[in-house]
Amino acid sequence: MSKKLKDWKTAVTKVEPNNIMVHGYPINELMGEISYADGLCLMLKGELPDRKLGKMMDTILVSSMDHGVTPPSTLAALTCVSTGGNLNQALACGILSINQHHGGAIQNCQKVLLSAVKLKEDNDLTIETAAEEVVKDAIANKVRLPGFGHRIHTNDPRAVKLYEAAKNLGFYGDYPKMMKAMESAFEKIKGKKLPINVDGAIASLLCEMGFDPELGNAFFMIARMPGLLTHIVEERDRQKPMRRINPLDYEYDGPGQRKLG
Amino acid sequence: MSKKLKDWKTAVTKVEPNNIMVHGYPINELMGEISYADGLCLMLKGELPDRKLGKMMDTILVSSMDHGVTPPSTLAALTCVSTGGNLNQALACGILSINQHHGGAIQNCQKVLLSAVKLKEDNDLTIETAAEEVVKDAIANKVRLPGFGHRIHTNDPRAVKLYEAAKNLGFYGDYPKMMKAMESAFEKIKGKKLPINVDGAIASLLCEMGFDPELGNAFFMIARMPGLLTHIVEERDRQKPMRRINPLDYEYDGPGQRKLG
Amino acid sequence: MSKKLKDWKTAVTKVEPNNIMVHGYPINELMGEISYADGLCLMLKGELPDRKLGKMMDTILVSSMDHGVTPPSTLAALTCVSTGGNLNQALACGILSINQHHGGAIQNCQKVLLSAVKLKEDNDLTIETAAEEVVKDAIANKVRLPGFGHRIHTNDPRAVKLYEAAKNLGFYGDYPKMMKAMESAFEKIKGKKLPINVDGAIASLLCEMGFDPELGNAFFMIARMPGLLTHIVEERDRQKPMRRINPLDYEYDGPGQRKLG
Amino acid sequence: MSKKLKDWKTAVTKVEPNNIMVHGYPINELMGEISYADGLCLMLKGELPDRKLGKMMDTILVSSMDHGVTPPSTLAALTCVSTGGNLNQALACGILSINQHHGGAIQNCQKVLLSAVKLKEDNDLTIETAAEEVVKDAIANKVRLPGFGHRIHTNDPRAVKLYEAAKNLGFYGDYPKMMKAMESAFEKIKGKKLPINVDGAIASLLCEMGFDPELGNAFFMIARMPGLLTHIVEERDRQKPMRRINPLDYEYDGPGQRKLG
Repeated sequence: MSKKLKDWKTAVTKVEPNNIMVHGYPINELMGEISYADGLCLMLKGELPDRKLGKMMDTILVSSMDHGVTPPSTLAALTCVSTGGNLNQALACGILSINQHHGGAIQNCQKVLLSAVKLKEDNDLTIETAAEEVVKDAIANKVRLPGFGHRIHTNDPRAVKLYEAAKNLGFYGDYPKMMKAMESAFEKIKGKKLPINVDGAIASLLCEMGFDPELGNAFFMIARMPGLLTHIVEERDRQKPMRRINPLDYEYDGPGQRKLG
Repeated sequence: MSKKLKDWKTAVTKVEPNNIMVHGYPINELMGEISYADGLCLMLKGELPDRKLGKMMDTILVSSMDHGVTPPSTLAALTCVSTGGNLNQALACGILSINQHHGGAIQNCQKVLLSAVKLKEDNDLTIETAAEEVVKDAIANKVRLPGFGHRIHTNDPRAVKLYEAAKNLGFYGDYPKMMKAMESAFEKIKGKKLPINVDGAIASLLCEMGFDPELGNAFFMIARMPGLLTHIVEERDRQKPMRRINPLDYEYDGPGQRKLG
Repeated sequence: MSKKLKDWKTAVTKVEPNNIMVHGYPINELMGEISYADGLCLMLKGELPDRKLGKMMDTILVSSMDHGVTPPSTLAALTCVSTGGNLNQALACGILSINQHHGGAIQNCQKVLLSAVKLKEDNDLTIETAAEEVVKDAIANKVRLPGFGHRIHTNDPRAVKLYEAAKNLGFYGDYPKMMKAMESAFEKIKGKKLPINVDGAIASLLCEMGFDPELGNAFFMIARMPGLLTHIVEERDRQKPMRRINPLDYEYDGPGQRKLG
Repeated sequence: MSKKLKDWKTAVTKVEPNNIMVHGYPINELMGEISYADGLCLMLKGELPDRKLGKMMDTILVSSMDHGVTPPSTLAALTCVSTGGNLNQALACGILSINQHHGGAIQNCQKVLLSAVKLKEDNDLTIETAAEEVVKDAIANKVRLPGFGHRIHTNDPRAVKLYEAAKNLGFYGDYPKMMKAMESAFEKIKGKKLPINVDGAIASLLCEMGFDPELGNAFFMIARMPGLLTHIVEERDRQKPMRRINPLDYEYDGPGQRKLG
């Protein structure tokens, strides 16, 4: 038994009196030098990201910061608050409601892209040909391709901006290209466009940045924390407890559209 | 009943087809322009932070990114993973274990500081005098002052760096000064130093940045997500399921101390 | 440190190879002899309940087994399932949504009853006089008395049956009588009836059975598990993922009213 | 959209003013007549169980009521409490830590048994022959058979008692027999006994009682609630916050072994 215990090794953070080293870097030296997004990359990869990787991660996190009151993760959090639940209970309900059908498209799409690019490489195909095969396959097997289509947005502005940023930051490689090629292939085959959504764009960039699909949803959970938190506070401050929460009947009364300073 | 429903108003995010506006700002215009930390400030305050506020928030978040395998939030997450729990179950266990005695010092310390500065202003006292009164009071009533002392660190490097950053970024105002004054008052009265810990430093800066104590723990929860996530992945990748997790018997086997590039 | 560890003593269950003793009773000897409700009493009190205590607990648990699809704990669980959440994620969301305003009345009401009966005893009052004082006090201080009134039921059939059972089983003592006296006092003072609800009836009986108010909500959580579980399964089996869950728009299509065989 | 909403139908519980009908039975008529275990069966099956089914369920629930302080679900709950977490946060951590490797054996074993009995029926085999094929198969494919072996108990007293009760109550049919036959087949083939554990015994009885494998873990979660709750209360009452919880260093100081009155 004690032998088994000696087996607990951790390579993440070493804590000594007055010195906390994250993957070898004293945390007080990281503070002020790196952003939270950089820190997230450092934690998960074990190495400090360059400016571009950190910036790409920040762009991804900001893209999914919030999507209003109707996502189920937000509704689960509000339902909890409405009963008198505290901050972490409500945040936990929100996180527990990010799954296969909400946020999950990210990791599912990453898996599709990984196999699509593998198909391309193993068989020396062009991205276009590989994309067509994957799409034809999905259509033949009646499999819904994750990362495409959105019940509200016909041209998801977040996906557009993510690819724009990816081009500027040097992440517009095989995976984003494969995603785009799949979008075109689908349109070509079906005659109608099924646009890339924010999950699909994020998935293709996470692959390009070298993140495992298993982590896909986690980025969404972290990204959505500010949104969940803000809605939780608003529910507590503006609403009566135990109200009926109807996701189809609400009104926005915040500031109108404005430009960045 | 339907009347009550019409009462659901939200001022956070407006979602229209192809346009998502966070407090009025199209999210695609925020992407690439602001950091995750900026986004967190925008969400909670309703206004875009200036560069200094965002930078201070990033510094705070990075300071609490991780503290090794022994914090209870990490142990709860690892215990869940060890049974086969998935990412969001383990993250939820971690968040649910951030409470009064773990992370909670932040909001408790914010409350002490708010009343200490109020005491100073209401009675036209110097920071030093107000601090002494508060400390004497606490000692007389045998109340433990939150934000001071640490079971491992005698001089918490994160607190030191946070105040350094606060000075550079213009957040070294009454609240951090009050915290420092309380530390001195305590030493003067008791003859031994009880150093400001990371929670206390964060508390004083959150007050200075104008954040409500009720949000104190939430910043810690968000800050700790990368650490929780990384330990969850490590547990899944390196350990056998259902092992006995003994917080007193582990070994660090990651990279040695290194300097930032 | 190791000294502190030696301090971990537990008086609940002793596990030896091939022998599991709950408060001293081999679990295999309890199996078949006691009900789940008896087991719950044994666990919490450390002593085997007599037949009447176990029966009273069973009656309480059955009374709160389910209340349809609209309680927030059920809605939080359904919202989680709808995203693809698994059984324990959904159950956790349900339990995390049982708080101050949903289920919480039980422990709040227990506290009121404990102080009301103490008032009676300390001042040698009749139950009626003590009840009147408590009710007048609450009205004067505009405090809502927990355990009275229900947004759907004007005469909660569960409360009626709980008191009927309490009389048969010998639990109709000072606490239930105080609850009834408070109901009468309120009607006498305000001229309108605010009927005892299921939470209030349960609260008065848990006091009579000698259970701490801190445990009040826990009985409700346990009681509601079968209901949460059944609604979770129904959502998964009958509904599409990611539907809009509107607590005001649903239809019951199960069997009509029937009598016990 | 509104069309989709009209689609929400629920067959579980109808709530009218002053009348709550569970699968058609007024809850106040069930109260006092049925046990919690009966209620659980009614909720999930939609029909009132006969005395024997309810009694079998009670025996199963009592068997898994508690197993001391070392199960991970208990440790996760204690870790949460130790930080100041409240009852439902700690219970949620416990439930979230019941997964594939802890409790999960029940549903995995149910699946094996369902296919084993199907194999027997489809091919008109004896239970013994079917059991041998399944065991040989598992050994050949190096698949660990769920429901066998225990790290503490060589002869799990709960499994023994569950089968004894099953015989008395008329649930000792093909599934328990298949489980026993697999145990014998394993011993015959490998020359050493791998005894049926409590999860395996429960799994075989749940199959016999007609419960879906998907529900397997849920019964364990419900059964374990009294144990989790009692350990949570003990931690709060007997321990200091933020202690190091070492599952290898604790002491039982409760009553010695005793007989049922």
